[in-house]
Amino acid sequence: MKNRRIVLKSRPVGIPQPAHFELEVADVPALEYGEFLVENVCLSVDPAQRGYVNEENNYAPPVPLGGVMRALAVGRVRESRHPDYVRDQYLYGWFGWQDYCVCRPSAMLRRVDPAQASLSTAAGLLGINGLTASLALRSIGKPKAGETVVVTAAAGAVGSIVGQLAKLADCRPIAIVGSEEKGAQCVASFGYSAYANYREPLEPKLRELCPDGVDVFFDNVSGAIADSILGQMASFGRVIQCGTISIASWASVPQGPRVAREVLTRRLRMEGFVIFDHAAYFDAVAAELAALLAAGALRVEEDIEIGLERAPQALVDVYAGRNRGKKLIQLKA
Amino acid sequence: MKNRRIVLKSRPVGIPQPAHFELEVADVPALEYGEFLVENVCLSVDPAQRGYVNEENNYAPPVPLGGVMRALAVGRVRESRHPDYVRDQYLYGWFGWQDYCVCRPSAMLRRVDPAQASLSTAAGLLGINGLTASLALRSIGKPKAGETVVVTAAAGAVGSIVGQLAKLADCRPIAIVGSEEKGAQCVASFGYSAYANYREPLEPKLRELCPDGVDVFFDNVSGAIADSILGQMASFGRVIQCGTISIASWASVPQGPRVAREVLTRRLRMEGFVIFDHAAYFDAVAAELAALLAAGALRVEEDIEIGLERAPQALVDVYAGRNRGKKLIQLKA
Repeated sequence: MKNRRIVLKSRPVGIPQPAHFELEVADVPALEYGEFLVENVCLSVDPAQRGYVNEENNYAPPVPLGGVMRALAVGRVRESRHPDYVRDQYLYGWFGWQDYCVCRPSAMLRRVDPAQASLSTAAGLLGINGLTASLALRSIGKPKAGETVVVTAAAGAVGSIVGQLAKLADCRPIAIVGSEEKGAQCVASFGYSAYANYREPLEPKLRELCPDGVDVFFDNVSGAIADSILGQMASFGRVIQCGTISIASWASVPQGPRVAREVLTRRLRMEGFVIFDHAAYFDAVAAELAALLAAGALRVEEDIEIGLERAPQALVDVYAGRNRGKKLIQLKA
Repeated sequence: MKNRRIVLKSRPVGIPQPAHFELEVADVPALEYGEFLVENVCLSVDPAQRGYVNEENNYAPPVPLGGVMRALAVGRVRESRHPDYVRDQYLYGWFGWQDYCVCRPSAMLRRVDPAQASLSTAAGLLGINGLTASLALRSIGKPKAGETVVVTAAAGAVGSIVGQLAKLADCRPIAIVGSEEKGAQCVASFGYSAYANYREPLEPKLRELCPDGVDVFFDNVSGAIADSILGQMASFGRVIQCGTISIASWASVPQGPRVAREVLTRRLRMEGFVIFDHAAYFDAVAAELAALLAAGALRVEEDIEIGLERAPQALVDVYAGRNRGKKLIQLKA
């Protein structure tokens, strides 16, 4: 059996481009005892993937040159030599940009119940995006009713869920977005009370939208946009550092305004969130989110493309903010 | 009765200098009902006082021009028209740079028991410095046995206590200081396991002293020194933002390396600490610290000058790091 796979050809500095990858075809090796074979159904396209290929400060070692691009995916077990995995089960895990993945259990993040919701949601709302939105908001943000929650990349895969969860917690979620169209979508579909477009002066708009300051700042972007929001935190505000998508490269650490004085005088708490630390809660939180989805209390937006070969360009598009909701690559039409 | 008082003559940008103040003499007004008169015994000289006179981002409005310089002090009740305050009681509170202060209860931070320890300790170990060291380390630092705790301004009024408390918690406290002499004092007297002198290259020295990274960073200084330490945090490290003494002015926010990526990838928690939020714990923590002092388990270093008129220069000296331990002004010889 042949496996098409996208491997890393050269190491990018900053955002990986299609030229850094190469599609190759190889034989699927025979399974050893303890392994199982997953056939990918859909691939998750995530901003975090930049960090998987850069020689940069990150929470995991980078993909080696010639290695299959690291990616989360939803797949189906085709064959198994492991007693806990049986044919036709659906799984969500580190199956990479390829058709087939020979796996050991460590590659698996969560078993997927196709009756819980559509398979694609297993990679978004019920995958790292929804789990991140819920667990980061809850564990670091600790939102209280009536508080103002500002979210960057608000129309993205995580932000679109954060707005809805903040609204369900009786907060006032404010979306920060890069276009009027995304802002309108945030208000119409993702629970946001209002939005600010960062392509226009952000600070006066924030002062207008958050007259009592920002209680919770869910930051997916860092950089100048985050600076504006950090300058308008309320006392005892919480800052969730969930992503840094606006900074193209950390190879040489960029400069920005020092935050020490804001942190001190406003008694801010700023904390980093990486979803993989919270695996013990995945199934319980996914069940909660699936129940909200089934009840019509949550809405998901998916931006699905078809074909493995589209993956590298899809990642570029996510960095450029050209996706609408969760970007996914479906492997077969 | 005459009161000598030091008032703010002009508003400094950055560190206040003697020229910004003026000593004047005025009559002590008669007490109204609800007031009491405190005669100051010793004045506390604190880095935080810069923030009380600058038009800068802070947690309290600035001292008005012509107003008595805001300062903590230990004093004795001379006269009272308030039922809760009686003559000869000792108090610790906002009594200012002056001989006498007409007070209402809101000026009071803590009642002082002269049997608990010497009166001067009420302004240091049992005052905001010791209370800050203990409460910030405990509430934000959450040090666990065996962890590495790095402290800036380690020989200062707060740092000299943090080292000893971290040692008592079975941690490895590392002092960051500006001279070999202070470093030696930190190791000999303040519980530190080792020190690094920031006038020499700090990063290689830190790598040597903290091979597994920094678990708790108790920061009193901000700026380039803090940057070096923030780059060597261990995963899940805690950063206590307690002071920013190395930055002369925040009137225009200085630039520094962005911390978002370190916060995210190492899951750091960075939090601001202002002691006045924790008044409910002052008496209990002061009693603990007094017991440790009485048992010989804590050591305090005091740098006492005599005479109200010395206060402005003493503050400059603290910013220049010329104090040894807690700087105090005793009003009478």
